[in-house]
Amino acid sequence: MISKNELKFIKSLHKKSERDEFKLFVAEGTKLVTDLIKSGGSINQLLVTKKWVIEHPEVLIDLNLSPLEISESEMERITGLSSPSPILAVFHQPNLAHDIAQNNDSILLLDDIRDPGNLGTIIRTADWFGIKQIICSPNTVDCYNSKVIQSTMGSIMRVKISYQSLPEFILANKSNYTFYGTFMNGNSINNLKFVPKSAFIIGNEAHGISPEVEMLTDQRIAIPGNQLNDGVAGPESLNAAIATSVVLYDWFSKK
Amino acid sequence: MISKNELKFIKSLHKKSERDEFKLFVAEGTKLVTDLIKSGGSINQLLVTKKWVIEHPEVLIDLNLSPLEISESEMERITGLSSPSPILAVFHQPNLAHDIAQNNDSILLLDDIRDPGNLGTIIRTADWFGIKQIICSPNTVDCYNSKVIQSTMGSIMRVKISYQSLPEFILANKSNYTFYGTFMNGNSINNLKFVPKSAFIIGNEAHGISPEVEMLTDQRIAIPGNQLNDGVAGPESLNAAIATSVVLYDWFSKK
Repeated sequence: MISKNELKFIKSLHKKSERDEFKLFVAEGTKLVTDLIKSGGSINQLLVTKKWVIEHPEVLIDLNLSPLEISESEMERITGLSSPSPILAVFHQPNLAHDIAQNNDSILLLDDIRDPGNLGTIIRTADWFGIKQIICSPNTVDCYNSKVIQSTMGSIMRVKISYQSLPEFILANKSNYTFYGTFMNGNSINNLKFVPKSAFIIGNEAHGISPEVEMLTDQRIAIPGNQLNDGVAGPESLNAAIATSVVLYDWFSKK
Repeated sequence: MISKNELKFIKSLHKKSERDEFKLFVAEGTKLVTDLIKSGGSINQLLVTKKWVIEHPEVLIDLNLSPLEISESEMERITGLSSPSPILAVFHQPNLAHDIAQNNDSILLLDDIRDPGNLGTIIRTADWFGIKQIICSPNTVDCYNSKVIQSTMGSIMRVKISYQSLPEFILANKSNYTFYGTFMNGNSINNLKFVPKSAFIIGNEAHGISPEVEMLTDQRIAIPGNQLNDGVAGPESLNAAIATSVVLYDWFSKK
């Protein structure tokens, strides 16, 4: 049995202020919850419907889980999805990294990424290419937002994410990293060799990199496209997550 | 003045069956609507609020538009967005291409892409890298779905998109193209040279490329990632739009 207050508390975790206070976040769906557990996620509470237990006996045994069974109508009250999943887990937030990586790793800086799907996809892609640390500007969407979590597919457990002023971060780390800003005009990444400690900056979906951050970049980089070749009008820009993936792939493939 | 029946008709265009019948689609927002017009989109009806007209006199003059003014409550009744935009346009669908490109262009095949945001982003990215034709399997989400349109940013007017059986298309075009299928295991794209007429196949978000299509691919290709390098568990896969962008960038940068 679950109390009304417990249900209310879980529902409240869809708000950033509550997630921040209790250092928890919510994930829904069999694949996502099991991915998070396998990636080292620490469960605070696991709620499932009776139907789910009957259909997934192997998951409980595999992962040694003892969930609380709730009704489908209770699940409907706490879900953040338009159609509720039969499994919802509350996880402890992994510790946010306020210190930067000490070794030779390259990093990613996000300047006001606002779309949760974009942030989730960026975290997943960064993880794929071996980026271990992401520095987000304070106005970047919360990485524990449930839509972000749904698109990270477990990577939220492997990539360290911190929120801090990008200009301050850059000034404090000028000697450690070369800061590459992605712009519509800049050196084509195709012709570039990146330094071992690279920091890639990705700008906001609509406005790009902010002027304060732009001033502090070491190199302007750009993604080549067809409109540069044949002069025909084409798209003005790439989606922020797409731009990130192309830059990270290019960097990764030249390592 | 707009009649109730006209409002009802526009609202009905959020359904695929109605869009198919009348060969129309809906786009909302100043930037998207102006992008579509500048990209050659042919307007069937343009609806704006009084407030929008006052705030955007230059857009009407620039593009030589004569919109119909409707009230905000009328706009609320026809919008497909959670918060309505003050401008909504009904466009004629560009002619679907049933014939394939006759020249040396490379193409993209999509095997059951289901997420509208993914399809829109794929179309925008394909346009960026100069892909002029996309062949979608019949179960791929409708490219005139308003969520697809919102994420294409005008590219829907420049890229020809057709829906047809991928196995049939591949069998009929075996001699024209080399078909590269993206898989979790395959030749790393980093080491590959692509032929001039390449056809890249991207699979469904959850299940990848279907067995019938897999059987017909000429080469299995894969995107290298960090988990191949250091043996640490990482993400199992990349988002479908991200995988597309990495493959197309790699191909484009080697042309």
